[in-house]
Amino acid sequence: MEKKERNFLVAVDESKESMFALYWCITKLIPHTTNVKLVLLYVQPTPAFHSFIASGCAFYNDVILDMDKYCIDLVDSVMERAGDICKKLNTTDIKIERIIGRGDAKDVICNAVKKFEADTLVMGTHSYGFFKRALVGSVSDYCAMYAKCPVVIVKHP
Amino acid sequence: MEKKERNFLVAVDESKESMFALYWCITKLIPHTTNVKLVLLYVQPTPAFHSFIASGCAFYNDVILDMDKYCIDLVDSVMERAGDICKKLNTTDIKIERIIGRGDAKDVICNAVKKFEADTLVMGTHSYGFFKRALVGSVSDYCAMYAKCPVVIVKHP
Repeated sequence: MEKKERNFLVAVDESKESMFALYWCITKLIPHTTNVKLVLLYVQPTPAFHSFIASGCAFYNDVILDMDKYCIDLVDSVMERAGDICKKLNTTDIKIERIIGRGDAKDVICNAVKKFEADTLVMGTHSYGFFKRALVGSVSDYCAMYAKCPVVIVKHP
Repeated sequence: MEKKERNFLVAVDESKESMFALYWCITKLIPHTTNVKLVLLYVQPTPAFHSFIASGCAFYNDVILDMDKYCIDLVDSVMERAGDICKKLNTTDIKIERIIGRGDAKDVICNAVKKFEADTLVMGTHSYGFFKRALVGSVSDYCAMYAKCPVVIVKHP
């Protein structure tokens, strides 16, 4: 039995790959699908300087504030670009939710799939060399294996 | 500009994962898409005994024939199961093409994507442990990285 609402979770970041993945999702996956919710997830890595602070390293407040402001601006700019794509593609009949996660992208995305009961996870992919893939894999590889729903990996043409 | 015909390439094998991927493709990706071609690709690994023969190892003809027959039966049974799924889901208005490839699944699938100008590659995924993934990766990881179209990786629920 199918759920009434179909949830598409799209992982967005600063990359053109993720913006193209969003474009592909809206133009190829969603059309003719009724009662759709599109969840845009941006994962903010835990900034290194927070770890420094946790480890007792001194930081000037204004530096911390500047860095925090930079992170917030980054989130805003990514969500703004994603929003522009949705607007251009006229997604007026689609519920859009914007979510900010923080931590290791792999885990945050897989947890969001569960939390939002995503029917499909859509993400761009970045190319790594053999060694980086062999050692750390990639976020998309990990999600394809562990996310609890089908994963669409869209590569920028 | 979009091509008139939309080609979905589904990699099928003996696994329930690949059959579920086919089911998911027909029920979630294809509906409401007009002028669709569904290419079912089965990749037959080059059998070890052929390598033995190539390396000059003697084999009784009837053994080779038995092994060849086994491979043919396997292809037939996979394509039959795939065909049953298509029939059950009433894909009468979809062109279906059955393709048998031979060699390393990763390469055969990525080459087929090019050859058939697939718009979307759909495949199931198998779970490997960390070491196997780290060393050899998985077919789906490889295709997600190298296939020249978006890749949908469907995990059996």
